[in-house]
Amino acid sequence: MNLADLNPPCALVDLDRMERNCARMADKISRLGASLRPHVKTHKCAEIAKIQTRGGSGGITVSTMAEARAFAAAGFGDITYAVPVPFPRIGEASDLIKTGVRLNLVLDSEAALRELEACGKAQGVKFPVFLKVDCGYHRAGVDPSREESAALAATLVSSPNVEFRGLLTHAGHAYRSRNREEAAETARQEREAVVHFAEKLRMAGTRIPEVSVGSTPTMTACKSLDGVTEARPGNYAFFDAFQVAIGSCSVQDVAFSVLATIIGSYPERSGFLVDAGALALSKDPGPVHMDPDCGFGLIFSEDGCRYYPTLKLGALTQEHGQIRVNEPLAARDFPLGARLRILPNHSCLAAACFDRYYIHRSGEVVDEWKPVRGW
Amino acid sequence: MNLADLNPPCALVDLDRMERNCARMADKISRLGASLRPHVKTHKCAEIAKIQTRGGSGGITVSTMAEARAFAAAGFGDITYAVPVPFPRIGEASDLIKTGVRLNLVLDSEAALRELEACGKAQGVKFPVFLKVDCGYHRAGVDPSREESAALAATLVSSPNVEFRGLLTHAGHAYRSRNREEAAETARQEREAVVHFAEKLRMAGTRIPEVSVGSTPTMTACKSLDGVTEARPGNYAFFDAFQVAIGSCSVQDVAFSVLATIIGSYPERSGFLVDAGALALSKDPGPVHMDPDCGFGLIFSEDGCRYYPTLKLGALTQEHGQIRVNEPLAARDFPLGARLRILPNHSCLAAACFDRYYIHRSGEVVDEWKPVRGW
Repeated sequence: MNLADLNPPCALVDLDRMERNCARMADKISRLGASLRPHVKTHKCAEIAKIQTRGGSGGITVSTMAEARAFAAAGFGDITYAVPVPFPRIGEASDLIKTGVRLNLVLDSEAALRELEACGKAQGVKFPVFLKVDCGYHRAGVDPSREESAALAATLVSSPNVEFRGLLTHAGHAYRSRNREEAAETARQEREAVVHFAEKLRMAGTRIPEVSVGSTPTMTACKSLDGVTEARPGNYAFFDAFQVAIGSCSVQDVAFSVLATIIGSYPERSGFLVDAGALALSKDPGPVHMDPDCGFGLIFSEDGCRYYPTLKLGALTQEHGQIRVNEPLAARDFPLGARLRILPNHSCLAAACFDRYYIHRSGEVVDEWKPVRGW
Repeated sequence: MNLADLNPPCALVDLDRMERNCARMADKISRLGASLRPHVKTHKCAEIAKIQTRGGSGGITVSTMAEARAFAAAGFGDITYAVPVPFPRIGEASDLIKTGVRLNLVLDSEAALRELEACGKAQGVKFPVFLKVDCGYHRAGVDPSREESAALAATLVSSPNVEFRGLLTHAGHAYRSRNREEAAETARQEREAVVHFAEKLRMAGTRIPEVSVGSTPTMTACKSLDGVTEARPGNYAFFDAFQVAIGSCSVQDVAFSVLATIIGSYPERSGFLVDAGALALSKDPGPVHMDPDCGFGLIFSEDGCRYYPTLKLGALTQEHGQIRVNEPLAARDFPLGARLRILPNHSCLAAACFDRYYIHRSGEVVDEWKPVRGW
């Protein structure tokens, strides 16, 4: 089967590019002296996680209990569920741990610690837990400069009912970068925030087994991982238009794309329509901090070889993508029924629109891989 | 089972509200003398379409061939696929028509007519087709003021290889309204654009069986459907925060919501975190034309009774929703593990995040209904 046999809208994964992205990140993290624990939420697909973890410890990071269960079933035995654990999910976590999986949980409050202790005692499980640290993103995590944070760490470490695994942080604010230098600076902050906090706790006699950091922009740009034990980037397996804009990768590295068909052509209003809308690309606005008119993805020819910088995916509705043509183009270049390949703004959200990925190499579809969905 | 037994994030449908919304729209369209052909893309669920079509002709509107097949299998025999037909889908349309389903297709170009004629001849099928008319939205459709449009209509009507069904338009620009009066004005334009075009074509001797219009804002606000034969609103079965903002409904009419759990609490930065992120609510930005800081949904207590206007769902990432508290609130009101109900900006896109809806009445879960997904 080749790409021409597929029925758009559908999700494509370029195997050569994806393998190259995975190898490059694995090499870099290894060279900087840390372990790679890739976040699999971007693709949620065991086959891809196996490529990401090749040669490493096999540890992965997930964003839902559904992922944890599916990846455990696929043979991954060391999983970090890197969202502050929702209380209704603690029972599911306990069930999975009882099957022999190491499932690390994350918390950032004494209330969560108390809940995990109580549930763990009731279930006969000692949960491995990371303390989430806020390195400046301000989404989750304790502020390492506050005394309460050190006190919580001490309480956590001394709890007989959980197993303290270490500190974990995520510099999501690296997505506000405009280039690799800015991302490198955020990477430095990410590392220093958590490494300094670990040093402070160690000075007070606390053993900190793991110091975990990571995002694709920071792990792509970072120059040092001194003091860090593991890195958790995820998006880099696919990359996307956003990562291109902020300098994490080149457009030739983007391994995920959506194949679309032209379904309308309106030369009189300089536009045409494709059958990939919000349910195929997501409404992620993309790098609007760099270009408020960036549109919803980058548009390429069907074979992926030719980029059309003058085509702008200006609006998405449920099943329609509206493409604006910014310079006169012959309508015959974009006839009804022709196909385009779109690199979405955010591959994590666009990939989640599909129940399968068509894996291709040199234009040939070599496999179909199915991701896990839901929670 | 009641709501407390559910495991967030999950999708709730309030049956009382949904039935009331459906009855109200059916009554209104009937009173204005047209048939209701509801768009089912919002929910993609046969049980809900049956409520929407109760007492009517049973005709529905879909946005994908996957919906067309699933609803045909559920007994719907008169379906309009209201997207300019993607050429790779024509074979599937032909297959469905051969099973005895009336599947109306939509086109807006001579190229599409020629393709349908050729495929129809090859398959031994005469496709029923609507000519899509642009009433000012400028997404798809022919411009009714252009001579080429009347010429295309004449060609279409005289084609022996397709069955001309009539004119179809959609005033998607009604979503730019700021209140019901503005939506009523757009409804007038929507109706007049297509009714005047029909009259012009009829003057030239063309028979126009159907004149089809519709969107939820325009069908909620419209005062007349004179000259219109059918209306195709869809979102009204659920409504959402966007429709509340533009005056299509009150907040007590919104039948779709997402149940979420509080997973983080950060009084020092006046915020907390829920486990409903972009994969549970979509990143639809909502009515930013009215309030650039509208956030990603309206936040209610778990039972849906209490609205929290001072809570703002300011940011969504994949599995996190960040809620900002705009006035001092006791942290004890929002403890970890507590649940909130979120009315998303756009119920069509949020509903598409889930593989089932929990149908509830008076706080009790009375059923689980499964939508169709994909294309």
